[in-house]
Amino acid sequence: MNLANKIPVGVLGATGSVGQKFIQLLEEHPYFELIEIAASDRSAGKQYKDAVNWILSTPIPEKIAQLQVKQCDSAFSARILFSGLDASVAGEIESTLAGRGHIIVSNSKNHRWDADVPLLIPEVNHGHLALLKHQNYGKGAIITNPNCSTIGLAVALKPLHDAFGLEQVNVVTMQALSGAGYPGVSSLDIIDNVVPFIGGEEEKLETEPKKIFGKYANGIIELADFKISAQTNRVAVLDGHLETVQVTLREKASPEAIIEAWKNFRSLPQELDLPLAPLQPVHYFTEERYPQPRLHRNLDKGMATSVGRLRRCNLFDYKFVILSHNTVRGAAGGSILGAELLAGTGNIM
Amino acid sequence: MNLANKIPVGVLGATGSVGQKFIQLLEEHPYFELIEIAASDRSAGKQYKDAVNWILSTPIPEKIAQLQVKQCDSAFSARILFSGLDASVAGEIESTLAGRGHIIVSNSKNHRWDADVPLLIPEVNHGHLALLKHQNYGKGAIITNPNCSTIGLAVALKPLHDAFGLEQVNVVTMQALSGAGYPGVSSLDIIDNVVPFIGGEEEKLETEPKKIFGKYANGIIELADFKISAQTNRVAVLDGHLETVQVTLREKASPEAIIEAWKNFRSLPQELDLPLAPLQPVHYFTEERYPQPRLHRNLDKGMATSVGRLRRCNLFDYKFVILSHNTVRGAAGGSILGAELLAGTGNIM
Amino acid sequence: MNLANKIPVGVLGATGSVGQKFIQLLEEHPYFELIEIAASDRSAGKQYKDAVNWILSTPIPEKIAQLQVKQCDSAFSARILFSGLDASVAGEIESTLAGRGHIIVSNSKNHRWDADVPLLIPEVNHGHLALLKHQNYGKGAIITNPNCSTIGLAVALKPLHDAFGLEQVNVVTMQALSGAGYPGVSSLDIIDNVVPFIGGEEEKLETEPKKIFGKYANGIIELADFKISAQTNRVAVLDGHLETVQVTLREKASPEAIIEAWKNFRSLPQELDLPLAPLQPVHYFTEERYPQPRLHRNLDKGMATSVGRLRRCNLFDYKFVILSHNTVRGAAGGSILGAELLAGTGNIM
Amino acid sequence: MNLANKIPVGVLGATGSVGQKFIQLLEEHPYFELIEIAASDRSAGKQYKDAVNWILSTPIPEKIAQLQVKQCDSAFSARILFSGLDASVAGEIESTLAGRGHIIVSNSKNHRWDADVPLLIPEVNHGHLALLKHQNYGKGAIITNPNCSTIGLAVALKPLHDAFGLEQVNVVTMQALSGAGYPGVSSLDIIDNVVPFIGGEEEKLETEPKKIFGKYANGIIELADFKISAQTNRVAVLDGHLETVQVTLREKASPEAIIEAWKNFRSLPQELDLPLAPLQPVHYFTEERYPQPRLHRNLDKGMATSVGRLRRCNLFDYKFVILSHNTVRGAAGGSILGAELLAGTGNIM
Repeated sequence: MNLANKIPVGVLGATGSVGQKFIQLLEEHPYFELIEIAASDRSAGKQYKDAVNWILSTPIPEKIAQLQVKQCDSAFSARILFSGLDASVAGEIESTLAGRGHIIVSNSKNHRWDADVPLLIPEVNHGHLALLKHQNYGKGAIITNPNCSTIGLAVALKPLHDAFGLEQVNVVTMQALSGAGYPGVSSLDIIDNVVPFIGGEEEKLETEPKKIFGKYANGIIELADFKISAQTNRVAVLDGHLETVQVTLREKASPEAIIEAWKNFRSLPQELDLPLAPLQPVHYFTEERYPQPRLHRNLDKGMATSVGRLRRCNLFDYKFVILSHNTVRGAAGGSILGAELLAGTGNIM
Repeated sequence: MNLANKIPVGVLGATGSVGQKFIQLLEEHPYFELIEIAASDRSAGKQYKDAVNWILSTPIPEKIAQLQVKQCDSAFSARILFSGLDASVAGEIESTLAGRGHIIVSNSKNHRWDADVPLLIPEVNHGHLALLKHQNYGKGAIITNPNCSTIGLAVALKPLHDAFGLEQVNVVTMQALSGAGYPGVSSLDIIDNVVPFIGGEEEKLETEPKKIFGKYANGIIELADFKISAQTNRVAVLDGHLETVQVTLREKASPEAIIEAWKNFRSLPQELDLPLAPLQPVHYFTEERYPQPRLHRNLDKGMATSVGRLRRCNLFDYKFVILSHNTVRGAAGGSILGAELLAGTGNIM
Repeated sequence: MNLANKIPVGVLGATGSVGQKFIQLLEEHPYFELIEIAASDRSAGKQYKDAVNWILSTPIPEKIAQLQVKQCDSAFSARILFSGLDASVAGEIESTLAGRGHIIVSNSKNHRWDADVPLLIPEVNHGHLALLKHQNYGKGAIITNPNCSTIGLAVALKPLHDAFGLEQVNVVTMQALSGAGYPGVSSLDIIDNVVPFIGGEEEKLETEPKKIFGKYANGIIELADFKISAQTNRVAVLDGHLETVQVTLREKASPEAIIEAWKNFRSLPQELDLPLAPLQPVHYFTEERYPQPRLHRNLDKGMATSVGRLRRCNLFDYKFVILSHNTVRGAAGGSILGAELLAGTGNIM
Repeated sequence: MNLANKIPVGVLGATGSVGQKFIQLLEEHPYFELIEIAASDRSAGKQYKDAVNWILSTPIPEKIAQLQVKQCDSAFSARILFSGLDASVAGEIESTLAGRGHIIVSNSKNHRWDADVPLLIPEVNHGHLALLKHQNYGKGAIITNPNCSTIGLAVALKPLHDAFGLEQVNVVTMQALSGAGYPGVSSLDIIDNVVPFIGGEEEKLETEPKKIFGKYANGIIELADFKISAQTNRVAVLDGHLETVQVTLREKASPEAIIEAWKNFRSLPQELDLPLAPLQPVHYFTEERYPQPRLHRNLDKGMATSVGRLRRCNLFDYKFVILSHNTVRGAAGGSILGAELLAGTGNIM
C-alpha cells in the first residue's frame, strides 16, 4: 500500500478504557493518522485531556491531548472509525455512520450477529471479509471484534481445528479487571476475592466461536458445529485473561503434533507483515508454571496468544492453559489489526 | 460422652500455618484440652510465642503462648495428636507416634493411601472408620484428612452421588494462598497475577475422591469408579478455595432435585451434634454472583461448603461453583471434626 | 438503665457501606432495637434484602432482610436515628428529623462544625455532651462522629495530651478502601498502586482534633491550640486505617511513661461498661512490625486503637504508628458507642 | 567516547532480582557489552536460563540465557562488574575484585560508608568521583549506589538544596515489594495489609542523604548538616516507592520558584547525554492525585523522579509527594548510569 498518505481515522468512545487503548496504540501508526475523537455529550466540546480520566501508564500523546472531543453523531472526515462505544448506544450510531460512508471497526457486541457483518479475527477468519460486499452501507462498512475472552481462545484453537478438527471445547476463564471498563469493578469486590460471574460473558464464549469458525459460502456464514461450554470468573488481575481449556478432537493427535501446529501457525496478517500482527500468533511455553498474566500479557506487542501445560485429560482428549491480553489483542489492538487487514487487502478505497 | 474430663490433645507442626489454625480452633474446645505442642528442632525448647510467627487475626491463646515447644519425637501425654507436619517428615513421625499409642489425626499426605487408613471427611465417609480395627497400632491409630481442594468438592458431591450417582466430574480450582503455607507464595508472584500450576495438586484431586467415595467391605476400600479431571490455579485470595465444577450423573436429575439434595443433606456429625459440625453442610446460594471467597468462607464456623450457579451444561449434565475454607474445613477444622467424630462414636478409649 | 425495654432505633442511609455496618453491629444489641431503616428514593418501598448490595461477610440479620425500606423524610417511630447518609443530603434531613424530636447520631460531616453539636469520641470528649442542652431541637438532638481517620488518632493522642500536653502533631495516613464507600475506589485505580490524595481528608484531619480536644465552657467549645499537619493516602487495604504519627509534647516524657499512659488509659465508656466500649481503648504492641491492618483491625470488637513502634524522632519528640478500624471504630461502631453513652448518662428520656 | 569497542562488563549476583534487572537494562547497551555473569555456588556452572527464576515481563536476552554462570571469586575479563550481591557476602568479594583491577559498581550497603567510596547519584553528587583517586585499588575502584528509598528523595531534594538550602526533611515511605528481593515478602503478609516496618531502612534514609549532599574537599566528604526523620512502610505495590516529604528551607521560596527549580533541573548526565540519563530528572505533576506508582514508575525509562502535590505545611515550609522506580532508578538503572558517568568522564581507562 502507498504509505505516503496515511489513512485518516477516528475513535468513538474515546474517553473509555478501550478508547484510551486505541489512542495509545494508534500513536505513530504507519498506516493510520488519528484525526478525530468522539465521546458522550458530557465530554463533547472539551479538550481531550480535560475530558478523560487517563488510566494508562504512558502519557496521552501530545497532539491528541489538545484535540477537541466531538459528539458521536457529528460529521467526521475520518475514513475509518474505531468504536469503543458502550453497547447501550453503539448499535444505532455505528449503523448511521456506516451509512454515511465510514468504515466502522467495532468492539461492541451490537452488530456481531448481523448476518452480513464479519466477526473478525484476522488470523482466524480473514475469509469472512467476503461478507463486506453483501453489506448495504455504500462506501461504508461494519466489521466487529469478538468478545475479549473469545479472541485468545479462538486463536489458540485455530491450528487445532485446521489440523485435527474440534469436536468439544470446555473453557473456564479467570478474567482481568480491565475487561469490565472503568471504573468497572469496585476494589471492595475483588481484593482478596474472586467473583464467579460475569454478566453475558458465558453466552458470548459459547456462541461466538461458532460464527468465527463458520464457513463462508454465498454471502452466508454457516456456523461451526462443535460443542462449547464456558464458565467465567473475575480475578484480581489488571490485564490479561487466563483460560483453562479442554478439547476433544475429531482426529487423533499426539502432544508433539499439537505443539508443532501451534508453533508453525502463521496466517494472512503475518504474510502481509501487518504492523500489529504478532510475529508468531501462538507462543507455547514448556515451563509448567507458565503462561502467567503479569509476565506474558505483553508478549509480541500484546498481540500473541500464550499457551502452556498441554497434557492429556481424563474426560477430554487434552487440556491446556491460554493467556491473551484483553484490551490489546482482545479489543483495541485486535480492531486495529482488523483495519490493517482491510488496508493490506485493498478493502479500503 | 463424659465431658467432665476433656481429652488431652497435642499439635505437631504447631508453628506452621495449619498448626496455628489448630491452636486457634482448639481454644475453649468442649471435648479437647490442648496440653502439648511440638515443632521442628529449630523451635523446640522455646516458649511458643517466641517460636512462632503468628499470622492469624486473633491473638495467640494466652495459655498456649507460654507453653514450651517440644520436639516431635518426644514422649507425649496427649491422647490425640493433630498433625500439621510437612510431608517431608510426617510419614515416619506419625507412624512412630501411632505405634506408641497416640491417635494421629493428620493433614499430611503421607498416610492417605495406606490401605488401612481412612481418608476421612466425617459427613461423607464416616463408615470408613471401620478400617481402624484393621490397623496395627495397638491403642494408637492414624486417620487422615484429604487435600484441602478435595474436601469441599467431596462434600458438595456427596448428596449428588447418593441420589443420582456420579459418572464424570470436571473441576477447575482457583485456590487461596494460605493453602501453600507460610511464607509460601511470594507476593511478587501473585499480585496482579494468577499462577496456573500447583505442584501435585491435580493428581490429588483426581485420585482422592475415589478413595473417599469408595465402598468399605472386609477391611478394604474399593475405589469409586467415576472419572475426574482437575485443573488447579493459584489466585490472589488469602483464604477460601473456589472451584468450578461440571458433573454428569448416572440418573436424570432436575435442577430442583439437585438443590433439594444439597439443602437437605445431613450426616452423622450433624446427628451427633459435634461441636465443629456445620449445621447445614452445604449452603446453596440463589444469587448468581455467589459464592465468593471473602464473603462466604467463614460461613457456619468456616465449616460449610457454599454452592451456587447450578445450571445445565453443553458438555456435562450440570455445572456449578463451590467454595470451601481451605485452612478451616480443608485442614485444621476438618481434622478436629474428625477427632470429634472419633470421640462421639466411642472410638477413643 | 432499665434494659427491660430496649430503645427503638433506626438507620438512615441503610443500604450504603456505613449503613450495612450499622445493621450488622446493631444485631442483638443489649440497649437498642432496630425497627426502621431508610434510604434513597431508589430503594424506598423495597424489602431491604432486595434494595441492598450486601458486602459484609456475615449474612443480613433475618429480621432486617424483610424490613421495608422507608424514605428518609418519613415519619419515624425510632427514638434514635443513626445516619450514614451522604453529605450531599445529610445536612437538611438530619436537622429536620432532630426538629421532629429524634436523636440523630451522624457520621456525616455536615453538622460537625455546628457550634452546639458535639464532635464526639466517647473516650475523649464525653464532657462535650454538655452542648446538648444548648441545642434547639426540643426532645431531639444531633451528635456527630469525627472523620474515620481522625478518630483513631484522637484516641491515641488523648492520654498523651492529658499527661504531657500536645504541641505539634504530624500525621501521614495509609487509608483503607472501605472509607470511600461502595463502589468507591475502582479496582483499576488501586491494585499494584497507591493514590496519594483523598479529597477533603487532610483538611478534616487538620481541624477536627482541635474541636475534639477543645475545652467546653458556657455552651462553647474553645478550640485546642496545638498544630497539626496531615498527608493522606489510599492503599489497597479493605479495612483499617494505618497512620504514622509524630508528636512534640509540652512536657518531657520518657518512652516508658508514654507507653504507661496508653496502657492505663480508661474513660467514661469503660467505667459505664458500655456494650461496644473496648476494654482497653489503646493497645500497645512491642513487636516492631505491628500493628498491621489485617491482623489487628478487629481487636476488641474492632473498637481498640492499636499503637506500636514508639521511638524518638530527629524532628519531633516521638514517632509511632497507629491503626484503627475505619468502619467500626471510625464510623458505625463509634456512633453506636456514642448512643450508648447517651443512654448510659441519662441523656435519653 | 569511542563506541567502536564496547566496554566489557559483568554482573555479580546475576540470578537475584537486581541482577535480573541489570541483565534486562544492559541488553543492547551502547557503551557496555555484558560478557560474564556470576552468582552463588548453587547456581555456578549452570546455564543462566537453568539457574534463574526469571521474574521480569520481558524474556531473558537470548545470548545471556545460554551463558554459563561463574562463581563470584572467579577470574573475570570484564572491566566493570555490577554488583547485586547480598550484603552478607558483598563486602569482601567486592574488595577482592576491586583489588584485582575491576571497577565495582555496587548496590550493596557494605562499602557505602567507606571514606574513599562515592555514594553516587550521578545528577546529585558527580563531584564525589574525585574520591576515586584516593582509593587504593590500583586500576580497580568501588563506587556505590545509595539505598533505593534514598535515591528518588535525593534527586527531588537536590534542586531545593541548591536553590534554597535544606534545613529539615521529614519523609514517610510506602515502598514496593520488589525492594525486598525475591521471594522477599510473603503474599500472606501483604495482601489486604500494610507492614509499618522495614529492617534497617529508616537508618539508611536518615544518614545516606548527609553523605550524598556532603561537600568534597581534599579527599574527604564533609557530611551535610540538615536534619532528617524517616518512617518506612511496605505496601502491596510491585514496583515504585512513593514517599510523602516535608521540608523546611533555609531561604524563603515561593511554590512557583520551587516548581521552577524542579522543572529546570539538569545535571552532568544530561549534559553528557548518557544513555540511561532521564531527559528531565524531576517531573512535576499538577494533577493532585499524581504521581502514582503504577502510572508513573516507568516515566523516562524508569529513571525520572515524579513529584506532585506541592503545598504549604503547618509544621514545615512545604509538603509534597515523590515517586521513584526502586529497581530501575533505585538500583540497577542507577548503577548503570553511574558506570556511564565514569565512561563519559574519562574515568575508565
